[in-house]
Amino acid sequence: MTRNIKVETLKQIPIEKQQVELVERKGIGHPDSIADGIAEAVSRALCRAYYEECGAYLHHNTDQGEVVAGESIPQFGGGIIARPIFLLLTGRATKSFQGKYIPADSIALEAARNYLKDTVPSINMERDVIVDCRMGTGSTDLRDVFHPYDTSRIPKANDTSFGVGHGPFSETENIVKGFSDYIDDDLRAKYPAIGTDVKIMGLRTGEDISITVAAGMVDKYLSCMDDYLETKEIVKSSLEIEAKRFTSRKVIVDVNTADDINNNSVFLTVTGTSAEMGDDGSVGRGNRCNGLITPNRPMSMEATSGKNPINHIGKIYNLLSTEIAMDCVEKIDGIEEIYIRLLSQIGKPIDQPHVASAQVLPAEGFDSAGIFSEVDTIINDWLSNIQSVTSRVIRGELNTF
Amino acid sequence: MTRNIKVETLKQIPIEKQQVELVERKGIGHPDSIADGIAEAVSRALCRAYYEECGAYLHHNTDQGEVVAGESIPQFGGGIIARPIFLLLTGRATKSFQGKYIPADSIALEAARNYLKDTVPSINMERDVIVDCRMGTGSTDLRDVFHPYDTSRIPKANDTSFGVGHGPFSETENIVKGFSDYIDDDLRAKYPAIGTDVKIMGLRTGEDISITVAAGMVDKYLSCMDDYLETKEIVKSSLEIEAKRFTSRKVIVDVNTADDINNNSVFLTVTGTSAEMGDDGSVGRGNRCNGLITPNRPMSMEATSGKNPINHIGKIYNLLSTEIAMDCVEKIDGIEEIYIRLLSQIGKPIDQPHVASAQVLPAEGFDSAGIFSEVDTIINDWLSNIQSVTSRVIRGELNTF
Amino acid sequence: MTRNIKVETLKQIPIEKQQVELVERKGIGHPDSIADGIAEAVSRALCRAYYEECGAYLHHNTDQGEVVAGESIPQFGGGIIARPIFLLLTGRATKSFQGKYIPADSIALEAARNYLKDTVPSINMERDVIVDCRMGTGSTDLRDVFHPYDTSRIPKANDTSFGVGHGPFSETENIVKGFSDYIDDDLRAKYPAIGTDVKIMGLRTGEDISITVAAGMVDKYLSCMDDYLETKEIVKSSLEIEAKRFTSRKVIVDVNTADDINNNSVFLTVTGTSAEMGDDGSVGRGNRCNGLITPNRPMSMEATSGKNPINHIGKIYNLLSTEIAMDCVEKIDGIEEIYIRLLSQIGKPIDQPHVASAQVLPAEGFDSAGIFSEVDTIINDWLSNIQSVTSRVIRGELNTF
Amino acid sequence: MTRNIKVETLKQIPIEKQQVELVERKGIGHPDSIADGIAEAVSRALCRAYYEECGAYLHHNTDQGEVVAGESIPQFGGGIIARPIFLLLTGRATKSFQGKYIPADSIALEAARNYLKDTVPSINMERDVIVDCRMGTGSTDLRDVFHPYDTSRIPKANDTSFGVGHGPFSETENIVKGFSDYIDDDLRAKYPAIGTDVKIMGLRTGEDISITVAAGMVDKYLSCMDDYLETKEIVKSSLEIEAKRFTSRKVIVDVNTADDINNNSVFLTVTGTSAEMGDDGSVGRGNRCNGLITPNRPMSMEATSGKNPINHIGKIYNLLSTEIAMDCVEKIDGIEEIYIRLLSQIGKPIDQPHVASAQVLPAEGFDSAGIFSEVDTIINDWLSNIQSVTSRVIRGELNTF
Repeated sequence: MTRNIKVETLKQIPIEKQQVELVERKGIGHPDSIADGIAEAVSRALCRAYYEECGAYLHHNTDQGEVVAGESIPQFGGGIIARPIFLLLTGRATKSFQGKYIPADSIALEAARNYLKDTVPSINMERDVIVDCRMGTGSTDLRDVFHPYDTSRIPKANDTSFGVGHGPFSETENIVKGFSDYIDDDLRAKYPAIGTDVKIMGLRTGEDISITVAAGMVDKYLSCMDDYLETKEIVKSSLEIEAKRFTSRKVIVDVNTADDINNNSVFLTVTGTSAEMGDDGSVGRGNRCNGLITPNRPMSMEATSGKNPINHIGKIYNLLSTEIAMDCVEKIDGIEEIYIRLLSQIGKPIDQPHVASAQVLPAEGFDSAGIFSEVDTIINDWLSNIQSVTSRVIRGELNTF
Repeated sequence: MTRNIKVETLKQIPIEKQQVELVERKGIGHPDSIADGIAEAVSRALCRAYYEECGAYLHHNTDQGEVVAGESIPQFGGGIIARPIFLLLTGRATKSFQGKYIPADSIALEAARNYLKDTVPSINMERDVIVDCRMGTGSTDLRDVFHPYDTSRIPKANDTSFGVGHGPFSETENIVKGFSDYIDDDLRAKYPAIGTDVKIMGLRTGEDISITVAAGMVDKYLSCMDDYLETKEIVKSSLEIEAKRFTSRKVIVDVNTADDINNNSVFLTVTGTSAEMGDDGSVGRGNRCNGLITPNRPMSMEATSGKNPINHIGKIYNLLSTEIAMDCVEKIDGIEEIYIRLLSQIGKPIDQPHVASAQVLPAEGFDSAGIFSEVDTIINDWLSNIQSVTSRVIRGELNTF
Repeated sequence: MTRNIKVETLKQIPIEKQQVELVERKGIGHPDSIADGIAEAVSRALCRAYYEECGAYLHHNTDQGEVVAGESIPQFGGGIIARPIFLLLTGRATKSFQGKYIPADSIALEAARNYLKDTVPSINMERDVIVDCRMGTGSTDLRDVFHPYDTSRIPKANDTSFGVGHGPFSETENIVKGFSDYIDDDLRAKYPAIGTDVKIMGLRTGEDISITVAAGMVDKYLSCMDDYLETKEIVKSSLEIEAKRFTSRKVIVDVNTADDINNNSVFLTVTGTSAEMGDDGSVGRGNRCNGLITPNRPMSMEATSGKNPINHIGKIYNLLSTEIAMDCVEKIDGIEEIYIRLLSQIGKPIDQPHVASAQVLPAEGFDSAGIFSEVDTIINDWLSNIQSVTSRVIRGELNTF
Repeated sequence: MTRNIKVETLKQIPIEKQQVELVERKGIGHPDSIADGIAEAVSRALCRAYYEECGAYLHHNTDQGEVVAGESIPQFGGGIIARPIFLLLTGRATKSFQGKYIPADSIALEAARNYLKDTVPSINMERDVIVDCRMGTGSTDLRDVFHPYDTSRIPKANDTSFGVGHGPFSETENIVKGFSDYIDDDLRAKYPAIGTDVKIMGLRTGEDISITVAAGMVDKYLSCMDDYLETKEIVKSSLEIEAKRFTSRKVIVDVNTADDINNNSVFLTVTGTSAEMGDDGSVGRGNRCNGLITPNRPMSMEATSGKNPINHIGKIYNLLSTEIAMDCVEKIDGIEEIYIRLLSQIGKPIDQPHVASAQVLPAEGFDSAGIFSEVDTIINDWLSNIQSVTSRVIRGELNTF
């Protein structure tokens, strides 16, 4: 069956030439990201359990839940959590299938606790966190069981919904994402005082890029205010050096700009996340599935994290749109920018979107026609292999926030 | 002090000429909208209480919370809620100020219960809902107390963040919003079987507009399947007539397309919201503050509902951007489209954004230069009167979702 | 089948002649009594629903649950609840039976809310209370369905357990229970400032009876400290007069002895129950099913309230023991005191206790032998009609605390 | 100041000569005992923290809380927990004192989790338990701070309340308590299939003692029904041998009498406690502080566990009454039975009870008068050293259930 794929030329000022560009990323320890990460960890744990017990992946959606902030009294050398963080796990999951019982609540609790322990290593899981679970019971429609080795049966779209994605990243997008990765993969190992709640806000005005970093510092690794200030300075200078990998524009980095040193009011935490001290978090309120918040770009409101990767359009089409866009950029010459939108129709096979739309901004000197047919082919290929998205999500190979 | 306002020309294909346009609105009874509505109702109730007790508006943020779905057994003539809906109220609020105690939890509970009763009138508040509250204690910085009659003190931005808005609405946007209002203001009074959980998805492909309506029907107002089908037909035909007010394009309306009549599987509910039967909801996951989800337009991820209207950029700048865009369209000739972005800097007065950016797509035959200076003036005026946004939010004159 | 009934003579100093006697009663608004009352209200509501839906009474036990105290700021003329009271309903109930679904959680919520509203009339149910429910799912063994008009099938004991009861009440017991009833039925109507949380402690030392009353006063009915003191005085004097109905001994009544008038520390409340301000309550921690706590008498630890009245020994045998003891006292001459103990064996019909034991203290001049055979007959009769206890509990004719 | 101590002769049939005697003990893994144990563990942990932080013991009461049962699917070789157990911690605690903040919620969570892990070792703490905390804030009256090395300041009684105790244990009491200890200290190490939820019910009828043991078996240590039956047989025979240490009467032991082997319905569990499968537990509903439930003896309704050991009469006087009774029996010849009752008066020093009453049943041939004066002396001595009870509770040397 022919797919409804529409490719059109986009006429607009390329992102790099727009006067003002905003890009934001909430690090893995930001309360919203914690909510996302837990939601996705629960979904993956359920998938593993379903496969072990039933040989197939069953229906569930855990793209909900709430991180209710605690209260803390940080101090140099090590403070205390005064009121525990409260996590509410919700959503629903198949708990019983063909005579097998799958203890979804227990699986969810364990996945959430393990995820939190990994993401906020300074937290004391026995004292400082309450994880509650009010997950409902879902049911698995036999038509939507996903058998990983039987790709003949394509699940039906759970809803009339859509996904969007774009490529390539702009310089500012690359910087914001790159800084976040650099801190997580590199800098924190050397400077454990840098917590995982690092929010990076990038603003490009013309040719000037200003990056504002809000990084919760872990008190036990800092003996005094001087240590704190020194760590801020290290973050700033390291990132300004790192910036050169992404751009030749001028990049200025500011760290924890709200600090008021004179009043001893700085971004000091016990665990490295502001969830300990007043900032709640929710699934789907933070980064889009490409890891960024980009108000200059089309975005979907759907939470990607925690949705089932079998037939939930809000998850699959957002991930797929981004994959397609990036793949087009990589394989096809002459794409300045590409925007993908996939729209489903409830009850129709997910490899047959109601419409798959691509908007292409060709680079100067390139011809649209040639690009268009290649884009069409790539979209068609990806849709033919849509279940590879499901498989990669389950294996944890695709980030969702 | 001069404000940093940047107006630039936008070169892009106008929305009405793009091949594919998507627009969505979640009605007031959709679980995400219920979460939004409660968050905002709580914030307003707190504002009223603060003013009564302290003569000023105090710090709070209630832009969190979770609607955990129940389970129901709908049936024609009237079914039952089998497991109550659970609402968790979180966020934080000032509970004590200058010797006065403000019982924020009690205020939040009452506001949430009243709001739910109004929005889902078929729900039995004594049986079918559990409202829990885990709201933390906030504190009010004296500099950020908002005295409604003292406009000399401008609050400081709570965060480095931004808001976006656009104008005018496209035809599809007008239709989706117009349909929703028409159902709420008109159709439901005549046909009470139409619940408040009405999700409207608009897809324009070229000149064809397809509107998919998912409307939870209230079982007690329908005696049998024929009643149900008749009501669906009424919705469809009423909306197709209503569509003519917004467009001369062809509009096709489909209602509850996932129904499987043969298997008695239709969108029947006890209360008119899918929150009764498996769909959770969260603040900030649904409509943007202009009432729509518009992936063809720039959007902010920020939840507008529930944030304090005094210094929370995620609320004030999103509302203000939309107000400015609409005001420009109304007052200035020749604007095909306008996009407003306001970026704050934490700790700076909210009337002094780090940058206020406008992108204007002039209508054919209009000159940018003239438009630009008028836009600049309008932005400047609105920023000078930014506290009017606060006042209007508190009075309930601005919708947030 | 012959029942195993053992009657023996008790040789001990009659209660009235013991030097020290202690008797306590927690009024209906005491946190423990609230927990009891809600547990029983839920059980009754479930029974009614089961009968309406299924024509029979099904398995459930709701003899659990917790009243978590709030915080309040009482003041003369009317104060506020600063943190809502939290009620957790637990236990388990049959939710599905022969194709019918019974929404036990909803029924429990409604029953609990209604009960609380009736018992603590000054409470604002929309603001000042959170009622949560985590009731599990029970299952009804077909052998233990109770059909009210089919007395041929006797349920099987749910456990190896026992009940105890005694009669008649001593003077001190009569006073404590009588005072409580008098306040509830009479005095409060005239003096609404007297809350429902009235704890009465009776101590008889020889011939002196000292009654200590702790009565939470409702602040909105008292304009000042003088009002408060006057109300205390009214309680004291009214009860001292009332005492003459029960005894010719000297009775001294003290009210709110912990008051510290100079420091404005008195037992003032917003709603008339200390559950608003720091005192938690649990099912089964207060009065025994005869309405009293009597450490001079044998007592059962079992919570009577909330247990199912069909086969739960902890409920039925405690109620029945008390009924038997009181009936013996009424019908048989010469009983100074009688103590009944009923012991079940799990899985055996409830009308066939493992042992039914009576200990009789004959009045002076009476012969044991005659009394013994009459007691045996009365016990046998009651056991033959044991299901009347079930029926009366369901109709609300037997108090459980 | 002279204490009000009253000693009188008790005339009654000694317990061993009464026809029917009932004694019960709920083992440490019974849901009610788990609730008690957690309550007491939390109180002790708070005491330790208070002492470390403030050098003194501060006000708290954690004698509340609820164990809400989960659901399980046990099977030979190892089953699963299908729904986690839910623990609610309530009560109140001083969280701030003289500028120090004590994170009472975190302390409570950790103590509860550790206690549960120790008591139900087969439970998976990451998966199968939710521990929530809704503990209120208490305040410490400076007069009631307990300084362990300053015994000059005697705390004031928190309430008008009482404690009761008796000695010596009867044979049946000794058997029931002895069996429980033997299983915990000896048998379980050899036969780990024996869970910690062992309820022992003793019934003496004349000279026959019948002991009914309900012992939850841990499924992973049993490969099949034969293993189960063999373990039951081991418990029965071991206990019948053990019985000879306590009595020369005939003792018959029955284990898990409700088992229905033919229908595969036996007392099999995943973790060894019925809290996993439907039985809720509450503080204060199980054993009295002497470890037993004894309806033939005077009992207090007060929960001893979790109350603060500084000034809470419901804890101190129950523990002290039992200590006094046992001490009298040990030191004084000729006491057949002794019953102690201590009654406080709110606000008075705890070493000055309103009345301390002893009822003594002298052994045959012994003279009351001599006994009385010795009892008076012992009571007086204990009251003079009442704070040793506090110290021993804090050190964990006194059992409370």
